[in-house]
Amino acid sequence: MNITETINQIQPLDQVSMQASRERQDQLTKPAGSLGRLEELSIQLAGIQGKALPTLKEKVIITMAGDHGVVAEGVSAYPQEVTPQMVLNFLRGGAAINALARHVGARVVVVDMGIAAEIEDVSGILIRRRVGSGTMNLTQGPAMKREQAEESIQSGIEIALTEISRGADILGTGDMGIGNTTPSAAIAACILGHDPEIIVGRGTGVDDDGLARKVNAVKRGLKINKPKSEDGLDVLAKVGGFEIGGLAGVMLGAASKRTPVMVDGFISTAAAMIAVTIAPECRPYLISAHRSKEKGHALMLEWLGLKPLLDFDLRLGEGTGAALGISMAEAACKVLSEMATFGEAGVSGKENK
Amino acid sequence: MNITETINQIQPLDQVSMQASRERQDQLTKPAGSLGRLEELSIQLAGIQGKALPTLKEKVIITMAGDHGVVAEGVSAYPQEVTPQMVLNFLRGGAAINALARHVGARVVVVDMGIAAEIEDVSGILIRRRVGSGTMNLTQGPAMKREQAEESIQSGIEIALTEISRGADILGTGDMGIGNTTPSAAIAACILGHDPEIIVGRGTGVDDDGLARKVNAVKRGLKINKPKSEDGLDVLAKVGGFEIGGLAGVMLGAASKRTPVMVDGFISTAAAMIAVTIAPECRPYLISAHRSKEKGHALMLEWLGLKPLLDFDLRLGEGTGAALGISMAEAACKVLSEMATFGEAGVSGKENK
Repeated sequence: MNITETINQIQPLDQVSMQASRERQDQLTKPAGSLGRLEELSIQLAGIQGKALPTLKEKVIITMAGDHGVVAEGVSAYPQEVTPQMVLNFLRGGAAINALARHVGARVVVVDMGIAAEIEDVSGILIRRRVGSGTMNLTQGPAMKREQAEESIQSGIEIALTEISRGADILGTGDMGIGNTTPSAAIAACILGHDPEIIVGRGTGVDDDGLARKVNAVKRGLKINKPKSEDGLDVLAKVGGFEIGGLAGVMLGAASKRTPVMVDGFISTAAAMIAVTIAPECRPYLISAHRSKEKGHALMLEWLGLKPLLDFDLRLGEGTGAALGISMAEAACKVLSEMATFGEAGVSGKENK
Repeated sequence: MNITETINQIQPLDQVSMQASRERQDQLTKPAGSLGRLEELSIQLAGIQGKALPTLKEKVIITMAGDHGVVAEGVSAYPQEVTPQMVLNFLRGGAAINALARHVGARVVVVDMGIAAEIEDVSGILIRRRVGSGTMNLTQGPAMKREQAEESIQSGIEIALTEISRGADILGTGDMGIGNTTPSAAIAACILGHDPEIIVGRGTGVDDDGLARKVNAVKRGLKINKPKSEDGLDVLAKVGGFEIGGLAGVMLGAASKRTPVMVDGFISTAAAMIAVTIAPECRPYLISAHRSKEKGHALMLEWLGLKPLLDFDLRLGEGTGAALGISMAEAACKVLSEMATFGEAGVSGKENK
């Protein structure tokens, strides 16, 4: 299914299921509304899945990796070789995303979207959808060709559809790519129309000089490439990344199959901005897991109209925040399904006081 | 063990274990500090348990129920009969706390601290530590005698010690008691020295008239009883509740055994204020699960110096927020224990950029 066909399949949330779950929430043995965000989440999930009692049994986190030519500008505190090293760490189960995914009962799908090195698949689970061997340096010209941007989104769609056909009830997004806060900030600055200074943050932890180089790289990237902010593919091609395009594709694919997406932090949110720019109808299928410590993230969430679940000062990526958010979404579904109603439990209702 | 003996056993957090866990966090395959609150939590838990690698396997939520004479003033939207009805719901597994405790793998311990009705123990798991058959109306005089306040705390200590001796690694607190936001607000207003207007909220959902009656009840209760804000037992006796005293006892008992306490919302936080007033040394053992939607809660957390983990607009009690918080604490421990170090994973460290 190509990008246009996928977008054409995205439906609005199912209002009938949402109303049914809302009514049930008001009959459960608790004061109406007293479970706050959990109630809101359960109603959104009902609308997404088109079921009055949504369920999240099979949980999958898709962590996509790619490299970035812009690292030549000294925008990261870590060397580029860390991208493949960390992907090996994912495959061996030793990274934060592995520990947190195990904790919440989710499976991690690791995808090479275009790392600048060959990776040995030590576990037999690596998915190779390499769009290139790292992007080009976005300060010198486009990060990738428009066809590559399309290919990255297409790959994300296909991976999402495959996982959903295997039974996934929710997809979490995650990223790995040394330097990828720089293209993410460029995407955000372009689409928000804001000065890069208020978006660009310290990423993995650059010092003041590194931060200045990042701001400068984003400014030069936007100036030389002039991405069209209303054309998501153009923004992705000119200042994005392969894993960012892949994650945008995951979101579109999931939305086309009535499947919720738990959006991780800064990079995943940049991918969400690409996805929503391409197809605004995918937005109701997105849930923001957390507010990242990375500068600019709050503005990006505001533009998307998403309210983050957690505020844990996370700034790691990989899908770590998404894992925790998925557990909250599952809790929301269980409350709705498993609690007794006032009638069932023989509990008296509210008085007129 | 009586209250004084319990307090005498509370030790400061173990700085050696905290330092060891802090150093390990910096060696794990992620930028230092990038897991934010999870890292802080893991270090606190190391200090509490006195282990460089803290573990939370056995999770127990202690939900204490009691009734309140002050309901005669029309301070709740629900009739008093809902307290025993909801306790039956807990015992049958149909309440929100049951669904959420199952989700996070915690066991719920239900305690009758002084409900104004006899409850049939339908499940064989109800713990009866009845200090009375509901408190007296705090607008007319003390809610309970000083000996009853001591007994409620003593019972909480004993229940905590029993659960810990059975293997509990963390205790969550929860409450049930129609009307109990009123004594909780009175405790907070007294200890904070604030006007009741800025503390008293709508509880289960009273209307404007009900809210005015609550504010008035708290004002009259403080005026007639004149609780001494520096004497936790006096505050508890004059304007508290049996389940609130019990929860304060749980906190003291847990701290005496190096066991973390996940503090639920408004009522549990009032109990924490009693516990900390009696024994300030228990404070480092407390973790705030969430910021309640109930008015005044943020001020109470500020006084305690606790930063809530979640902000989900919860206002249910029962230990529902504590259940979610316990899952976050467990995640923090797993990250610390299960992640590979840079050396183990062969991942390059930070460059000087």
